[in-house]
Amino acid sequence: MKYVLVTGAAGFIGAAVAKAMQQYGFIVVTVDNLSTGFRSNVPEGVIFIEGNCQDDKLIDSLAIYKFEAIFHIAGQSSGEISFDNPIYDLESNSSSTLLLLKLALKVNCNKFIYASTMSIYGYLGDHAVSEEEEKNPASFYGVGKFASEHYLRLYAKYGINSYAMRLFTVYGPGQNMDNLRQGMVSIFLAQANTKSDIQIKGSLDRYRDFIYIDDVVSAFIAAFSSDLKGHHYFNVCTGKKTTVGELISNIINLFPRKITSHIKDKTEGDIMGIHGDNTKIKNDLDWYPKYSLNQGLKKMYEWLNKKVK
Amino acid sequence: MKYVLVTGAAGFIGAAVAKAMQQYGFIVVTVDNLSTGFRSNVPEGVIFIEGNCQDDKLIDSLAIYKFEAIFHIAGQSSGEISFDNPIYDLESNSSSTLLLLKLALKVNCNKFIYASTMSIYGYLGDHAVSEEEEKNPASFYGVGKFASEHYLRLYAKYGINSYAMRLFTVYGPGQNMDNLRQGMVSIFLAQANTKSDIQIKGSLDRYRDFIYIDDVVSAFIAAFSSDLKGHHYFNVCTGKKTTVGELISNIINLFPRKITSHIKDKTEGDIMGIHGDNTKIKNDLDWYPKYSLNQGLKKMYEWLNKKVK
Repeated sequence: MKYVLVTGAAGFIGAAVAKAMQQYGFIVVTVDNLSTGFRSNVPEGVIFIEGNCQDDKLIDSLAIYKFEAIFHIAGQSSGEISFDNPIYDLESNSSSTLLLLKLALKVNCNKFIYASTMSIYGYLGDHAVSEEEEKNPASFYGVGKFASEHYLRLYAKYGINSYAMRLFTVYGPGQNMDNLRQGMVSIFLAQANTKSDIQIKGSLDRYRDFIYIDDVVSAFIAAFSSDLKGHHYFNVCTGKKTTVGELISNIINLFPRKITSHIKDKTEGDIMGIHGDNTKIKNDLDWYPKYSLNQGLKKMYEWLNKKVK
Repeated sequence: MKYVLVTGAAGFIGAAVAKAMQQYGFIVVTVDNLSTGFRSNVPEGVIFIEGNCQDDKLIDSLAIYKFEAIFHIAGQSSGEISFDNPIYDLESNSSSTLLLLKLALKVNCNKFIYASTMSIYGYLGDHAVSEEEEKNPASFYGVGKFASEHYLRLYAKYGINSYAMRLFTVYGPGQNMDNLRQGMVSIFLAQANTKSDIQIKGSLDRYRDFIYIDDVVSAFIAAFSSDLKGHHYFNVCTGKKTTVGELISNIINLFPRKITSHIKDKTEGDIMGIHGDNTKIKNDLDWYPKYSLNQGLKKMYEWLNKKVK
């Protein structure tokens, strides 16, 4: 039996990675505190442990498994929400990483794949941001993820090869459609679907780099399959800038009926925009995104319609 | 009555800052867990609260004071020791900062002075390091301090003016002469004093920028007196590079009797060396170091001799 740990498998991205690793023949163990995820998201067959990744006793108890890899995906995952409770953010995003790196060392697991974020950069102006640029995170969330990346770098000298996957704006089937504070695509799509009206926080000119969930999963798999030693970090993005205005039109076009939209205030820690340069992951992991925004949105819309019925 | 909070006043630097602030007429409150400091170090007249700065209830309870300023100096303070327990380091250095910033906001204290460190830089090669250079901390300690600086930056938008004082290698009277894992000058001087022999970990060519305690205190006072708004960070250093070999000769010369020296292995997280550029603090805070290494060492030696008698 070959085991991998995928933390946060009750969440959107964790569940998708867990499923993929099952398909590759691994027994997946997960830890999830169900603070934002759902038990029902955890794929069948996954060994589910309800609890916090910042709980040292719980993480210690996982040393009975000889993991082939640790995918650390659990954690508070919103810049905006990190302002509500910065301490919880620090614990769920940084303390957890320290405990899991210690676990990796203990069970001789030399592969650690981490869900990092574009939020480590902060606002750098309108250009495709590459990995080596300045980091001035605009939220506690961004700081905690950035600290975790440094921990990965420090643990590389103990032989733990690590891959910090700096996720840009992830969307797709499986995303929580009821969380009105997190996930730009899911929020707009849910509003269109339930109220036929989209409430936009801030300007239509803000922009993101939207990356489809299946492309994120294939990036995690590419890191898992990589022979690169040491510590590595990659933007996981399409390389395409999309404005909020463009996203809204795309969403509106999905629906056969009329959808309206309105503009509201902008939120704390929000930035004018960010889009990424994905040259490094293409070169080093031979990974390419496969889904255009339109293709991804269509799949998400189909999923939503099936789900509702 | 005017109050200031100086965390860690049972430690070397905290005690010195507390004393200075008393001399300026403030009532000093301190929180110290006595994990490395000593009750006897806390200056007379300081309101002493034994406890952890990462204890949210304790920090909440301080809201009865309307602090004019918060000097956050408490915390695990060794790069080497941070490898023993990275989680403790994160809590004592980063969680504490978050709680104290929250306290500052609550009591309308708009001045936050933070004991940061040269350890946020990591190894950048042999040149005087300025504030804007790359940060790749070589220890968990360095990562935690760096995360704290980002927290200060984020809180600046709530009107809390902050000053991250990046201390280089601090030495002087009051330093713990019994701690054999921390403080290059105190370790060598204690060895010379008690055994007439100095054990050197690593090469004589390694180097540091040694800054005398009174100069550190005057830097904290300069930050306290500053009108600069927003978030600021400063190297607190002499701008002079001193090799371990030079330090050893200086120490040996202090003693009338013969002192020998021997070389041992280097420790984890240790870097070839670092020395700083202090242009920014000179320009922005009008602060200048007053003590040469020789002057500082002589004062420390005199203190040590008085102390022993």
